[in-house]
Amino acid sequence: MQTKEPKESSLDKILIIPLGGVGEIGKNMFVIHYGQEIIVLDAGLMFPEDEMLGVDMVIPDITYLLEHKNKIKAIFLSHGHEDHIGALPYILPKLNVPVYGTRLTLGLLKIKLEESGLLHDTILKEIKAGEEVQIGSSFKINFFVTNHSIPDSVGIVLKTPAGIIVYTSDFKFDHTPVHGEITDFHTLAELGREGVLVALSDSTNAERPGYTHSEKEVGEKLKEIFLSAEGRIIIVTFASNVHRIQQIVNAASFSGRKLAVDGWSMVNVVEIAQKLGYLHIPPNTLIDVDEVKKFPQNRVVILTTGTQGEPMSALARLANANHRKLEIIPNDTVVIAASPIPGNEKLVSRTIDNLFRRGAEVIYENISGIHVSGHGSQEELKLMLNLLRPKYLIPVHGEYRHLIHHAQLAEKLGVKKENIFIVENGSMLEFSASQGRVLSSVSAGGIFVDGLGVGDVGSIVLRDRQLLSKEGIFIVVMTIDNKEKRIVAGPDIVSRGFVYVKESEQLMEEAKENVTKVLESLMLKKVSDWPTIKNSIRDSMGKFLWEKTGRKPMILPVIMEI
Amino acid sequence: MQTKEPKESSLDKILIIPLGGVGEIGKNMFVIHYGQEIIVLDAGLMFPEDEMLGVDMVIPDITYLLEHKNKIKAIFLSHGHEDHIGALPYILPKLNVPVYGTRLTLGLLKIKLEESGLLHDTILKEIKAGEEVQIGSSFKINFFVTNHSIPDSVGIVLKTPAGIIVYTSDFKFDHTPVHGEITDFHTLAELGREGVLVALSDSTNAERPGYTHSEKEVGEKLKEIFLSAEGRIIIVTFASNVHRIQQIVNAASFSGRKLAVDGWSMVNVVEIAQKLGYLHIPPNTLIDVDEVKKFPQNRVVILTTGTQGEPMSALARLANANHRKLEIIPNDTVVIAASPIPGNEKLVSRTIDNLFRRGAEVIYENISGIHVSGHGSQEELKLMLNLLRPKYLIPVHGEYRHLIHHAQLAEKLGVKKENIFIVENGSMLEFSASQGRVLSSVSAGGIFVDGLGVGDVGSIVLRDRQLLSKEGIFIVVMTIDNKEKRIVAGPDIVSRGFVYVKESEQLMEEAKENVTKVLESLMLKKVSDWPTIKNSIRDSMGKFLWEKTGRKPMILPVIMEI
Repeated sequence: MQTKEPKESSLDKILIIPLGGVGEIGKNMFVIHYGQEIIVLDAGLMFPEDEMLGVDMVIPDITYLLEHKNKIKAIFLSHGHEDHIGALPYILPKLNVPVYGTRLTLGLLKIKLEESGLLHDTILKEIKAGEEVQIGSSFKINFFVTNHSIPDSVGIVLKTPAGIIVYTSDFKFDHTPVHGEITDFHTLAELGREGVLVALSDSTNAERPGYTHSEKEVGEKLKEIFLSAEGRIIIVTFASNVHRIQQIVNAASFSGRKLAVDGWSMVNVVEIAQKLGYLHIPPNTLIDVDEVKKFPQNRVVILTTGTQGEPMSALARLANANHRKLEIIPNDTVVIAASPIPGNEKLVSRTIDNLFRRGAEVIYENISGIHVSGHGSQEELKLMLNLLRPKYLIPVHGEYRHLIHHAQLAEKLGVKKENIFIVENGSMLEFSASQGRVLSSVSAGGIFVDGLGVGDVGSIVLRDRQLLSKEGIFIVVMTIDNKEKRIVAGPDIVSRGFVYVKESEQLMEEAKENVTKVLESLMLKKVSDWPTIKNSIRDSMGKFLWEKTGRKPMILPVIMEI
Repeated sequence: MQTKEPKESSLDKILIIPLGGVGEIGKNMFVIHYGQEIIVLDAGLMFPEDEMLGVDMVIPDITYLLEHKNKIKAIFLSHGHEDHIGALPYILPKLNVPVYGTRLTLGLLKIKLEESGLLHDTILKEIKAGEEVQIGSSFKINFFVTNHSIPDSVGIVLKTPAGIIVYTSDFKFDHTPVHGEITDFHTLAELGREGVLVALSDSTNAERPGYTHSEKEVGEKLKEIFLSAEGRIIIVTFASNVHRIQQIVNAASFSGRKLAVDGWSMVNVVEIAQKLGYLHIPPNTLIDVDEVKKFPQNRVVILTTGTQGEPMSALARLANANHRKLEIIPNDTVVIAASPIPGNEKLVSRTIDNLFRRGAEVIYENISGIHVSGHGSQEELKLMLNLLRPKYLIPVHGEYRHLIHHAQLAEKLGVKKENIFIVENGSMLEFSASQGRVLSSVSAGGIFVDGLGVGDVGSIVLRDRQLLSKEGIFIVVMTIDNKEKRIVAGPDIVSRGFVYVKESEQLMEEAKENVTKVLESLMLKKVSDWPTIKNSIRDSMGKFLWEKTGRKPMILPVIMEI
């Protein structure tokens, strides 16, 4: 194959840079840089950690991509989950490159792009498993079917002059998938024989021994539950899990129940998945939510959202009796066909508790196993590695301990320790047939999205929010006549989130006396520079409030001058 | 037995009021009210939920006890965990009644009372399993051994003229306990034969099928790990789990390792447990933390705190490389012999990740089962119920779903549905041989402790903290000459936790112009009442900021007058 002489790397070397998705579950983005050409794999978002107060979502830092903007040939998407496509509305306006993905992935992306007004400016190209796409002069790109908790998932193979790179993305090996296609063993085996230079493989379940159960097993349990429940079934699952939804449809049909679909994202996905042929609902099955009451209780299934106990979701509203159209009645069976994402355990438990309080029977993972993971367990990770036999392995899609366990598995299979790269976001890795190494690192990390702002909330704002959240704010305001060195108004004290003011009048009065004394003594000494005055107020109030209350609110002196 | 004629309840009736511990795990407190006499069982605290921003702990509302202060005869403690004794320093000054508990329970309580300066004013009475104590004229009180994750735990039996009440408190049936004593089957069987009116029984693990494993099994695993690890062992467990600590001592001894104890609470408990004879450490085993470096790596165990990933704990400091005396070195094996308390999963995971980052091998529950629960699973709850054969059951010590599952188990064993009381804190239950019912409810709920304040943080302060935590605060200050209807200083704008001000100068400038216009137009109209001015500022700024940033900070107008 002929390529131009590349500047940054010689013909037999390729750079791989994870900009997100290692040491974390979320905001997956991997940069493959060969010569003068760059391919980007996935562009996901991450939901904020607890301490990222008020942040709506986190997206990857794309400084590296902006610096090499003219080299970027395309973005390839592996599947339609938020942690793989969710950052696109924020980065496409800055990059404007074609986006490749399978039909359902692009279908879900289009909804997002439409909402952001980007649909008409974006070139979307549909790909199919088995196809080959030539990109630029250096990349031949193929796709192979994978099983995951959303249909139309693929792994991505990049054939370059330096060697073959395989990005498995999220996968499991499901021998009895709902939709009929099995993770493509044959292509993986062929690649293994051909010789894979680098594999980037899913580490999510690297801690779990054995095999992940088949999605079909959930279907069997659903049928049992739908048949035996005496009242209505209310069921929630991830809206994007179309296979699961198909099985809910099947179980409803099997048990002679009508199906009502509720919740914005669920209605959306059911519509698009039906339109694109990924979901098949028999005629006379769907009913409107308003029609539920017309049918006997044991003839109804309501499919809705809220697997994570999110306070505004349909399920939480049902649990708190503030859903607009529905309410829990004592004979209901609520099925939560999902597991809590780490960090959401308490929200989910509270929702379950409140559903029980309203008299429903609740079936959830802890007590029933009514959910299977979309990610392969240890035996599947081993199978993938033994099929591909990569020279170098980058465990991806996992928090640090998952990457470590994935690496330990790989070592047991004979991958050399020095050929396994556990790296942080931003690490620039260079691979050739003879060597793999970390070259350096580039700018990487989380960019916070808060409301309309992208990147305007940083560590200082977060630190303030954390302080405010724990102790509140204590504001001292005064107006000073700077010529006469005299306080003309105030000091007044206003607090929020500190104490209940009506019950703490005496404290506030004492604080005011205290600050007045400090000010008067400063005036007497003719001190008039604001920083000194402010520091004196902060110090004396800080000490006073700590002694009286054992708390350290943010103290904010505001001085006005006439 | 002779008793005075009680006013509120007749001779054959008894009242039971949970003031904490039902519908929640934490702040256990149960009031037993017979005639003119009241016994209180346990007085625990609860750690705050996520949304209780800045709250240090939550204690029960004891309004009912204060209203019946002269009737309270004693507080009985079942064991020394915080959720059973932690509220005492806050309520004893208000009640001043004798406190009964076993030796270790009182030993741990004394440390708390000493810290609060209450030790000399409190009457502490030591009890032993098997003893009987006569309290007032109506109560004969007995105690039976239970297995739990702290030594010297007991269940409490109250024999009253109205019948026998059994409070199991937290328990499991451990056939091979570390300390030799088994949950007292024989006394329980005897009570069952005698006839139990009401049982209050632990629901924590009502969702878990089967039996909880024996503490001894942890000991076996520890020995294996201590023997095979090539470097140092750093191990954390709950400081109060003296049985676990004993097994760590044994495993250290067995594997020829010295033991260094680190962390304030761990050092404290090891000291008191040794002194009271609950922990036996062979001579020449203990070393000082400073001496660790003198021994070969495979001859050392360091026992410390931080099972929950608490940011200030020893383990988190080790993970973040800011421990004062110790640091992780690559050959270390860190053992977390505990499971995360619900809500702490993320903190624990992050600590594990950072320990791996420093090069340690980490052994934790997810991958090893190096922890067993202190609470009985379903088969043990059934055994307890079949031994006691209570007429009435109050499932306690559990969130609502745990209570429900406990009740479902009891129904399967033949306890009548109408005799099982799933109640909320504050429910007043009345029992007699012929009837059990909910009479009414009393004031109950959580009192927040924040710093030195008890009860001065309520829903308004919390709501403010929540708003501040998500969007920050936007303060508009101005000084007005009210006679001349003129702004003499400001408007000035100060924000915290909203945007990074240095990068948002233009936004702040526009906001200032906007608010100036609003004020000028109000002045022109001779509007001078502050509420109107403040509302106008809030409305116009709220709209302006929402349009510009998509955020809704707390807007606080402060007007000064000269």
